[in-house]
Amino acid sequence: MENENGSAKTTGKVIRCKAAVCRSPGTALVIEEIEVDPPKAYEVRIKILCTSLCHSDISFWKLNIQHPFAVFPRIFGHEAVGVVESVGENVEEVKEGDLVLPVFQPHCGDCRDCKSPKSNACRGLPKLYDKMPRDGTSRFRSINGEVVHHFLFVSSFAEYTVVDAAHVVKIQPDIPVEKACLLSCGVSTGVGAAWKVADVEEGSTVAIFGLGAVGLAVAEGARSRRASKIIGVDLNPEKFEIGKKFGITDFINPTACGNKKVSEVIKEMTDGGADYCFECVGLTSLMEEAFNSNRGGWGKTVILGVDVNSLSLPLNPHELLQGRSVTGSLFGGLKPKSDIPFLVEKYLHQELNLEGFVTHEVSFQDINKAFELLVQGKTIRCIIWMEN
Amino acid sequence: MENENGSAKTTGKVIRCKAAVCRSPGTALVIEEIEVDPPKAYEVRIKILCTSLCHSDISFWKLNIQHPFAVFPRIFGHEAVGVVESVGENVEEVKEGDLVLPVFQPHCGDCRDCKSPKSNACRGLPKLYDKMPRDGTSRFRSINGEVVHHFLFVSSFAEYTVVDAAHVVKIQPDIPVEKACLLSCGVSTGVGAAWKVADVEEGSTVAIFGLGAVGLAVAEGARSRRASKIIGVDLNPEKFEIGKKFGITDFINPTACGNKKVSEVIKEMTDGGADYCFECVGLTSLMEEAFNSNRGGWGKTVILGVDVNSLSLPLNPHELLQGRSVTGSLFGGLKPKSDIPFLVEKYLHQELNLEGFVTHEVSFQDINKAFELLVQGKTIRCIIWMEN
Repeated sequence: MENENGSAKTTGKVIRCKAAVCRSPGTALVIEEIEVDPPKAYEVRIKILCTSLCHSDISFWKLNIQHPFAVFPRIFGHEAVGVVESVGENVEEVKEGDLVLPVFQPHCGDCRDCKSPKSNACRGLPKLYDKMPRDGTSRFRSINGEVVHHFLFVSSFAEYTVVDAAHVVKIQPDIPVEKACLLSCGVSTGVGAAWKVADVEEGSTVAIFGLGAVGLAVAEGARSRRASKIIGVDLNPEKFEIGKKFGITDFINPTACGNKKVSEVIKEMTDGGADYCFECVGLTSLMEEAFNSNRGGWGKTVILGVDVNSLSLPLNPHELLQGRSVTGSLFGGLKPKSDIPFLVEKYLHQELNLEGFVTHEVSFQDINKAFELLVQGKTIRCIIWMEN
Repeated sequence: MENENGSAKTTGKVIRCKAAVCRSPGTALVIEEIEVDPPKAYEVRIKILCTSLCHSDISFWKLNIQHPFAVFPRIFGHEAVGVVESVGENVEEVKEGDLVLPVFQPHCGDCRDCKSPKSNACRGLPKLYDKMPRDGTSRFRSINGEVVHHFLFVSSFAEYTVVDAAHVVKIQPDIPVEKACLLSCGVSTGVGAAWKVADVEEGSTVAIFGLGAVGLAVAEGARSRRASKIIGVDLNPEKFEIGKKFGITDFINPTACGNKKVSEVIKEMTDGGADYCFECVGLTSLMEEAFNSNRGGWGKTVILGVDVNSLSLPLNPHELLQGRSVTGSLFGGLKPKSDIPFLVEKYLHQELNLEGFVTHEVSFQDINKAFELLVQGKTIRCIIWMEN
């Protein structure tokens, strides 16, 4: 007998479904029929309910074809929510029908980092950004047999995807799926950076460089911790109005600072420098400016943005010696399997605001519209609804 | 009636005494008669018992005459112990006859940094490296009336000095003075960096770049915290034998690493990188190597060395994103007035080893010998005994 997800029909079989395939850098995705293999041991096949687009998708999508990470054809997407369709051998923590988030950040639970409360940098599995981590192969094929590559352990721009169990987080089904989707990458990254990496306290001053979803989520994290001043820095003045919903109290447009550097303006606004500065864009010039905006004594700069150009971040050691620090983290320092359910809980208890991040919604067939909106800076998060 | 320090004769009067005056960069100090004014309000006049020479003295002594901090004639010395000869108005925490350490790091007790447990970067007084901080004048004159400048708020290469009360720490008289002297700068800096800034835990791995007094004190701090591996990096292989006394378990001579970088060797020795790396020299190239020797997840690099060349420290943001951090501190993050007495207590309870730092002792008239020994890397600390 078939269950509600229809998986009795599909368990153990290849699934033919639609995916938005990218065939070369920067070109529109093409909705194609693909074949998705059943999950192998320690793997989970997930029916995606909705997905959204994160800046890292754009960065990898636009990568120069010479770049070692530029691999095509490929299925992008790494922020999503779905339902377990079937599991491979040795998967016990999730089962068919569970609501889950696939996440790029692994959490094997067994390595030294997973066992330490100080780290979320799981090292239990190889970092293969375009393949399944355990056997280095793909679960996707085009219908003519051509291998289609994975992306960031998730590949959610498909009706079905296969993800390693270390990248799957079971969540409470009470949360609306589009809110859950946000917690799969960007919003968790920002909230985690404020709560766990910086550990923002009541009354502190915060400066956030870049008010995309991650930056706004940092603001939400700082607001909920009762920071006294939350300064947003962005080239787009419309972000101030949006930011107010997430607790931004002051706004700086770098183009409107005259001869002053942003760091000088922030130092004036905060009596010598902000307690916490967050870089959410991925530009080393902005990371340096964030560092220079920090107060001495205990000022902490948190790097969240991923610089795809591999430039160096130049720091002045004398400023470090005054008691400043710089730290970086992926996924806001969160351990996915324990910390995402905690964030869901916080949302359900109205202690974490997830309203306002979703500014647009499109159907899967219009996925390229989501790319346009994000590239043009017109959306915070655009939810892409699968239609199966 | 005169008390045991003879201060009944001198209180409120100008004292004529000997000082080792530096008249131009890099030249031998000259023992001269000078005049030392009585302490003004919030100031303490101290009879120096012994002093020692720290690398920062050498750095400032050698500064190019064009450098804004190169001010002459000047009395160097900032690591010392002495007895209070007299105090100015409004000084209540120390009195005539107290054993005290003059320290370069201020601790006013009233500013926001002093009131926060997170900072030792006191901002209560102006940072004037060649003058008394409150009124910007000098208390030293040559006998022909020429102003002689202060150094780093201490100027201990004189029989008497005047120091702001924010730079004076009263200590228990049970500690031998030459051991107390060590706690006035270098050793406190290293132990503080291990105990307070890094907070080294049992079983952790530590790499120390530069095995001078500060680096060896970091080792002592890490040893006392039961670090499992303490790797010393130094160009001088003799430092390994000396370092063993302070807990160094492994030694790397960068010139003996063949084609490998020191960071590669450390990563091999520590299964992927040390938990804590300390740079104690003040070279940005070494700071970068220290950072690259850190493990991801929670690796922390602590910058202690002062780079007088004002170069930038180039960091790879991708390495930061893996959960690494870099922090800096002066005086090992210690708040002098509370933390130095704590270190004295630890020494008196045999929980902090101060044996082995003093490798040489000279009389005040031979002070230039101490410079030679340190410049040639032949001493850890050379105690200079005043003879008054």
